[in-house]
Amino acid sequence: MFNKKFKKKLIPLAVMTSVAFASLGGSISMAEAKEKKVNTPEIKNVIFLIGDGMGVSYTTAYRYLQDAPKTKFADRTELDKYLVGLQMTYPEDPLQNITDSASAATAMSAGIKTYNSAIAVDNDGSEVKTVLEAAKEQGKATGLVATSEITHATPASFGAHDESRQNMNAIADDYYDELINGKHKVDVLLGGGTDLFERKDRNLIEEFKKDGYSHITSKDELLKDTNKQVLGLFSDRGMPKMIDRSEETPSLGDMTTSAIDRLNQDKDGFFLMVEGSQIDWAGHDNDIVSAMSEMEDFDKAFKAAIEFAKKDKHTLVVATADHSTGGYSIGSDGIYNWFGEPIKAAKRTPDFMANEIVKGADVEETLEKYIDLDLTTEEIKSVKDVSTKKAVDIDNAIEKIFDSRSNTGWTTSGHTGEDVPVYAFGPGAERFAGQIDNTDNAKIIFDVLKKGKNKTRIDDK
Amino acid sequence: MFNKKFKKKLIPLAVMTSVAFASLGGSISMAEAKEKKVNTPEIKNVIFLIGDGMGVSYTTAYRYLQDAPKTKFADRTELDKYLVGLQMTYPEDPLQNITDSASAATAMSAGIKTYNSAIAVDNDGSEVKTVLEAAKEQGKATGLVATSEITHATPASFGAHDESRQNMNAIADDYYDELINGKHKVDVLLGGGTDLFERKDRNLIEEFKKDGYSHITSKDELLKDTNKQVLGLFSDRGMPKMIDRSEETPSLGDMTTSAIDRLNQDKDGFFLMVEGSQIDWAGHDNDIVSAMSEMEDFDKAFKAAIEFAKKDKHTLVVATADHSTGGYSIGSDGIYNWFGEPIKAAKRTPDFMANEIVKGADVEETLEKYIDLDLTTEEIKSVKDVSTKKAVDIDNAIEKIFDSRSNTGWTTSGHTGEDVPVYAFGPGAERFAGQIDNTDNAKIIFDVLKKGKNKTRIDDK
Repeated sequence: MFNKKFKKKLIPLAVMTSVAFASLGGSISMAEAKEKKVNTPEIKNVIFLIGDGMGVSYTTAYRYLQDAPKTKFADRTELDKYLVGLQMTYPEDPLQNITDSASAATAMSAGIKTYNSAIAVDNDGSEVKTVLEAAKEQGKATGLVATSEITHATPASFGAHDESRQNMNAIADDYYDELINGKHKVDVLLGGGTDLFERKDRNLIEEFKKDGYSHITSKDELLKDTNKQVLGLFSDRGMPKMIDRSEETPSLGDMTTSAIDRLNQDKDGFFLMVEGSQIDWAGHDNDIVSAMSEMEDFDKAFKAAIEFAKKDKHTLVVATADHSTGGYSIGSDGIYNWFGEPIKAAKRTPDFMANEIVKGADVEETLEKYIDLDLTTEEIKSVKDVSTKKAVDIDNAIEKIFDSRSNTGWTTSGHTGEDVPVYAFGPGAERFAGQIDNTDNAKIIFDVLKKGKNKTRIDDK
Repeated sequence: MFNKKFKKKLIPLAVMTSVAFASLGGSISMAEAKEKKVNTPEIKNVIFLIGDGMGVSYTTAYRYLQDAPKTKFADRTELDKYLVGLQMTYPEDPLQNITDSASAATAMSAGIKTYNSAIAVDNDGSEVKTVLEAAKEQGKATGLVATSEITHATPASFGAHDESRQNMNAIADDYYDELINGKHKVDVLLGGGTDLFERKDRNLIEEFKKDGYSHITSKDELLKDTNKQVLGLFSDRGMPKMIDRSEETPSLGDMTTSAIDRLNQDKDGFFLMVEGSQIDWAGHDNDIVSAMSEMEDFDKAFKAAIEFAKKDKHTLVVATADHSTGGYSIGSDGIYNWFGEPIKAAKRTPDFMANEIVKGADVEETLEKYIDLDLTTEEIKSVKDVSTKKAVDIDNAIEKIFDSRSNTGWTTSGHTGEDVPVYAFGPGAERFAGQIDNTDNAKIIFDVLKKGKNKTRIDDK
């Protein structure tokens, strides 16, 4: 666990860049609007969604995948409707320019550039205040939702502090131990990671339950329980990917809706972070089937947030990515078309199929059961011929079928450094427009919270 | 040449999508602003710049490349300051989703989706009116500037009509033969391609000169000549890339400034299209050195346009790409850093060096002369060992040195299908914001021209 002797450091709110709006020439009042915020309703709630690894190729490919083929023009995704710009993702320094999820999430949660692997700590190791903590200080309800372990780098950087993302036990401890005004700082925790809470050295599930949290483990329980405070852990580690889930496992949309319903009971408003964690995992694996599965899961969760915000009118919704992953390209090997149909033909992820095969299932039967395509003899043979018989190699062989059928390209098993899209809706949305930096997200949300607080004070007088 | 029996078809101006602005919630007047255009100055001039192949990886990488290393935060490029959103690039249909430059340029010049290779013609072969032609119909001055042949797909789709981009002689003929109100439709033509104008069957240079056009062939002549109509051809085919140019060859910025100076003499205003043509060529070649050379050339041309527009106050500047190329990724092979320094160390493109070697220059001497790095024995050997001794293979070997040193990844020799960035400045800039389609560019510019025309009519009464 991170050494708590370092004192907590609140990064001063930097002057917001207005550079994005310098563009709007003589005409328009976007710049003016940004400054004056005329008629901006009070922002009571903030929902911040992160598609981990969701670069522009992913958002574009998902548009083609979900497009109804009968229409001549591409149907827009839910995300598309709210695009406001792009953000830079570099971590510590422009010379060290490919971020990991911890550094990027810390930039977005605390407004600072820090080293890869840092969980809401600065380069010198000092803890930095996060927007979730600032919201809790104001008495707002708070929540973290993810399809990874809920202690994974992205959610952790909003609700914990650690010198390393690897220390997931310590991060789980932080969620329980770090109190704000005597209260637990995260009211709603939904995701994977039972193993990190139910340990030999400590049973955090029991501790949270003792303090009034519901503990739930299935979609059914999630829907039935209405407690304001909840620890929902739906898998030992990361949750299954969308297309691999059983009825018992909630979707990211289910968790998002449930989190909003609980948090919205707080009259002071709420802050909620939602992560589509495994778009990135699919990218690392160079697995286009899983990537599109997780894009759909994320787009639907975003839609749930938007639907709430449209009714509520006092909710700012922001969605973005932390970085892109895999060097994924729409098109490869000189071919001028990318096909979504072969990807939609997969009923399970290649990982799932590979594991079935390793457990003894017949290769051809498994592929035919889970892939709704007429596979060629060569394609089936390419999986049968995997000499190691290891799941990872069988997985790779199955992925290659989809890459080849769809014309999908990859350059790396890691992250890439290009800018990622930013989507925003609701009061304050215009502040995220243009070319922003990942740290601007936190800076703007801190400012929104500060203004909300000041407003309350004025009202109180 | 394209069969002129097809009648010219003007695509009706579609209702502008306001989807991008639906995002801005209760708060702000971006949507209102877009509708009302309160206090929008009259738009007299439009400068439309296309970075061919300039996807988000390119614009991001160029930011890292040009960043002053001593500053902790990334210095924004000129383009960065004016980002307003992203555009979709698919050609004919979402199911045929990777465009070529002809179809994309036709989308942006005429507002229609058409087949790859089409030069301002619809799927049925009918010619479609372009924004350049609409501007000329209103008596505005018009110009095309490119670093490719000026008859290449992108400029051609603004100033000519042909069933195929391959017919570059016919396209050159169109520039001369297709008159609007009895006048040549393009007043300023600056770029490469002497071979397409000075031919066995026809000498278009002499024809243009006879009609009052200046004919210029060097930077010096470009700067000295101030004629309103000019045919500037600075190379037999495509121009040399920025870092390979001699003093005699103008930059894209030089040509842009010269074009603006000439066109701005027209009291009715002007339309100018400027293409950074060879970002794409570098992408096809998977050549990161050339890609960054051409990004710099384009960013500077954009800056020249912005500087004019800032003074003029009646000029709309839009910059975008037609598609991305090469599946270029910032980072490769699992490494979390991309380095610009090795790329900046190149004094000439790999193509230039390969050609020197093929002409007999010593491999080691050539590499050391043109690359300001301590090359390893293995790196030099990798070029010496090219068994074919062909320029293309030597070029590839040199490119691999830069890919490896910078951690640059590629997936294709062709284009890719992801959305590309859109930048805008000046009155009307807000109309390009959010998630737009490539056809929206033409639709908005047609509308801008129409409104300008109506305004003139009202003034005339």
